[in-house]
Formats: sequence, structure tokens, C-alpha cells
Amino acid sequence: MPLIVTGSVAYDSVQTPHGAVERVLGGSCTYFAASASFFAPVRIVAAVGDDFDHEHQTTLARFPNVCVVGLEQREGSRTFSWGGKYHEDMNVRETLFTELGVLAEAPPLTPQAYRDSRYIFLANNHPSVQMDLLSQFPTRAIAVADTMDLWISDANAELKELLSQIDGVVLNDQEATQLTGVRNAITAGKKILEMGPTFAVVKKGEHGCVLVHREGVAALPAFPAERVIDPTGAGDSFAGGMMGHVARRHADEHFGGEGVSFDMLRSGLARGTVIASFTIESFSLDRLATLTDAELEERLQEFRKVVAID
Amino acid sequence: MPLIVTGSVAYDSVQTPHGAVERVLGGSCTYFAASASFFAPVRIVAAVGDDFDHEHQTTLARFPNVCVVGLEQREGSRTFSWGGKYHEDMNVRETLFTELGVLAEAPPLTPQAYRDSRYIFLANNHPSVQMDLLSQFPTRAIAVADTMDLWISDANAELKELLSQIDGVVLNDQEATQLTGVRNAITAGKKILEMGPTFAVVKKGEHGCVLVHREGVAALPAFPAERVIDPTGAGDSFAGGMMGHVARRHADEHFGGEGVSFDMLRSGLARGTVIASFTIESFSLDRLATLTDAELEERLQEFRKVVAID
Repeated sequence: MPLIVTGSVAYDSVQTPHGAVERVLGGSCTYFAASASFFAPVRIVAAVGDDFDHEHQTTLARFPNVCVVGLEQREGSRTFSWGGKYHEDMNVRETLFTELGVLAEAPPLTPQAYRDSRYIFLANNHPSVQMDLLSQFPTRAIAVADTMDLWISDANAELKELLSQIDGVVLNDQEATQLTGVRNAITAGKKILEMGPTFAVVKKGEHGCVLVHREGVAALPAFPAERVIDPTGAGDSFAGGMMGHVARRHADEHFGGEGVSFDMLRSGLARGTVIASFTIESFSLDRLATLTDAELEERLQEFRKVVAID
Repeated sequence: MPLIVTGSVAYDSVQTPHGAVERVLGGSCTYFAASASFFAPVRIVAAVGDDFDHEHQTTLARFPNVCVVGLEQREGSRTFSWGGKYHEDMNVRETLFTELGVLAEAPPLTPQAYRDSRYIFLANNHPSVQMDLLSQFPTRAIAVADTMDLWISDANAELKELLSQIDGVVLNDQEATQLTGVRNAITAGKKILEMGPTFAVVKKGEHGCVLVHREGVAALPAFPAERVIDPTGAGDSFAGGMMGHVARRHADEHFGGEGVSFDMLRSGLARGTVIASFTIESFSLDRLATLTDAELEERLQEFRKVVAID
């Protein structure tokens, strides 16, 4: 069930009310892959610069289900670097600096051995780059993309074209409103389905998430967490947990051309929510690096109780 | 299992993006009682003025489980009247006017026949008035109060005294933060428990609710509603559904001095959420007035599917 993710591997410098870190391992691809790897084998396609530390490659490779063959290190280039600050309201963050580095160059090459990938996650990038990447996986079963406000405003036509080619999209509530002109998350999700995808997941940070699928609507609160050290990567972690679960379930249940079902995704939401609740307990991948399957299963069980209705 | 609610019966003038109404039946007591009545018999204690229309008394009395003996009509007084406006973001409302009328006078009298009430809901009022009302029910089993920003700032000592005497409190997220100085809903809830109550319910409007109880934490999203005509009364309706369910469950399960359990309240959250989702489908009580038990049960079943985790 090869799941592939293309996106950024980055150096993050983050300040939160609980502390500050400099140039720690981050990026959409990183958080997604580490999180998805608890559910399915993951392949990374991303580029870093010659400033990328061997230690950080090792950190990623230590997640036994993550394949880093597609992590391309470029001489003379710099790794994407982001600096941000969170205040008391951790739902809002301030970007302090962005150094694009390799992200301003040609996209990373997909290794030949990865071309048979069945499950594709296109982390946030210019939709033209996402479409180009998508075309490299001719035998794909499910393709899902993330996006951001910049592309909704500045590459709207390309984004619409991308949406007509993929199965699902994951975005936050402001982005869903910006894309559709509609504030209500359910109505916005339905409008997105009219653009092509089978499903849309609207992320609401500490307020949880909503899934709008052709077969129905699901919603979950966030896991009730008190110990939020750093929310960076929560959204990518959520997407990773969800897609990892979906890839495993789809591979188990379908050998033919069946699409992604409402039930699969609904279960995926819960896995994504739970893995993200670990990510925010530390800076970088620190918590995920020590997480065990037993702890994950225990928290999932706890989450079932949180939302149980008799 | 007599459940009693003391609060306002009001005339509301409301503007939303879907229309406008003038002097329709509203008030915390009204929404609470109509909603709770689907789960348990409810007694109202409230005052109105001589401008209160007989038609509106009939509207309330048409809910078969609502007893209006405690609705006191005062000659020479005016019914509390509120005017408000909702914009596209229905989580935020603007108050256009407030005419206190009877709310500026002495509190309503509790009929002698109501003194045996076991389940007490003190809708938003000055905490000294709430304490005085509370003292009129010597055989109470469970007492719960709502409050608002004004009392948290201007009657803080009285509110703290009230909190030390009741079993639970229902308030929104901004109020929970204001009361405790803590932004995280779970941590804020736990701080409220240190003030005395066994539980706190933090309402988050369209983002659902969180229950913090001595025995555990629960959270639910709002029912995924697209058709929000008027959010007025949603919070009181939620509290009514929750308390109606709790009163019925507690009366069924306990004959002695047992308190309110986590499980009872958790199930109550779901009932409150579902009944509130009907309230917002119309202005005033219009939708609740036509609601059937079968429709309620069907939506509860639908809500179970929305949050199901396999």
C-alpha cells in the first residue's frame, strides 16, 4: 500500500508561550510522513539543501515505515527555513521569516521506484507543481492535496484544475471560505465537491474537523488537550494519520478500482486527530519519535470515550 | 422528576442574514423550558409585564410538558425586551437595545407547589438573585447555573459564592476564560471545578461543547447544520436538552443522595446539541413547536453517525 507524500522538509524556528527552538526539523512532508508511518509505509519526495544535517536525515529514517530514498539533497542550495511565533491564542500564528531556498528551485525528482505509488498526498505547493507531481503516478488509487490562501488568490485557475483531477482536499476553515465564498464549513465543503473531489476535509485547529463526502458528513472535536507545547505541524500530522489509515484500509478492502469511501475517511479523521494530539506535545518530532503503537491505541480508545453518545 | 427553570421570558426583535422579526417570544427560560420538555416535565418561574400577549402564554402552554403556573404577569410592568443583530459570522451578535422591564424589579415568586423541585436550572441572572432562588428548593438533587460576562466582572464575589453551592455551571468559552484567566477550555473547566462545582460545560457555539467533570472530560462538535436561520436561544436550548435528559436519567437511576454522574451529563450533551440544532432552524420557538419525538430521535441517531469512530 505505498503512500507517497511530496512537500517540504524544513528547518523551523518557533516561539510559543512554552519556549523557543532554532532550526529544528519541520516541514509538511516531515510531519505528514512521521505521522502516517504509524499506519502505513510512507515514501517521501522532497528536496533539502547542503545545510541539511545528517542527524536530521537519521531522525526521519528512525521512523521504521518512512522511506527517505526520495529525499534529494542539493549542493549549493539551502533548505527551506521558516520562523514563526504563537501567542496565547495558539490558533493564530505570526510568520517571522521565510527563506524559500530549494522551494524556489525546480521540484524534486520522483525516484523511478516510487512511480507505482497508489496513495498520493500533495502537501501545500503551487497547484501547477502539484499537478506535475500527480502526473507521475499513473497507477494511483487515491490522490489528496493540501493548499493555502496564497494559491487560492494567486493561482486560482490552476487550483481549480487540480481539484478536478484529485479525490480529496484537506484545508483549513479560512481557506475553505476563501475558496468558496461561503462561511459555513458544511456548505463550503459541498461547494468544493462541485469542483470535482469526492471529499473535502475542513480543519478547524483546536475546534476539530469536518468531513464532507458525497456519501455524508462527519465531524469530530479536537482531542481535549491541555498540554500544547507547539501546534506547528498539527495539520500535516492530522493529514498524515488520516491518509495512512485510509491507505491501509483501502489496500485491505479493495483490489480493483473502488474509490475512497465515507467510512474509511471517517475512521481516518479520528486517527488524524489522535496523532496530531501527540505532535503538539513537543517541538519538532520529539514526541512522535518516542510514541509507541500502544500509546496511540490507548489514546484512540480514550478519544472514543470523549465523543461517545449512548 | 420535576425540573424547574428560573430566568427570562422575553420579547426578542432579531435581524439575521435570513430575515427579521419584531417582538417574538424569546428569553432564556422560554428556550430552556421548551427544549427540556422533550425529555422531562418542566416548571417555569419568570415574570412578564402587562404587555405580554395571551397568545404567547398559549404558545408555551402548548408544549405539553411545560407548567406555566409560575409565570407571573405584573400589571403596570413591561416584559423584558431585547433587540439584536447577527451578521454573516453568526457566532458574533450585536445587541441593538435592552429594555429590562420586569427584570429591573423584584424577582418572581416561586409558587409553593414548586418548592419540592429536585432539579434546578438558574438561567443567567445576578448571582445574588440566583442564590436567593436556590435557597427556595431545600430538597434539590442537582442545581446548575448559567452566568454572563457582566456578573463575572461586576459581581465576582457573589458568583464565586454561588459556584460553591451548586453542582454545575454552563457558560461559553469567553466567559470561562474571563472567569479563570485561562484560554484552554479544559484547563479553564478544571479551574472552575476548584471553585466548587462537580462539572462545568463550556459552550463554543458552532464549534460544539466541552464537558469537564470530576470523573472525566467529554467533547462534541455542534450538529453539522447548514440551515441556520436564527441562533438566538441555541445556548439555552442546549442547556434545556441537557438538563431535561439529566433529570430523567437521575430520577430513573437514583432515589437517594447520588450526585450527577459523568455518564449522565455526557449523554445530556448530545441531547442538548441535537435539540439546539432544531432551535436555530427558525426564529423564536417556531421549529420546536412543530418538532416531534420521532424527528428528535432520528436526528440523535444521525448525530451518533456524525461522531462515530470505529
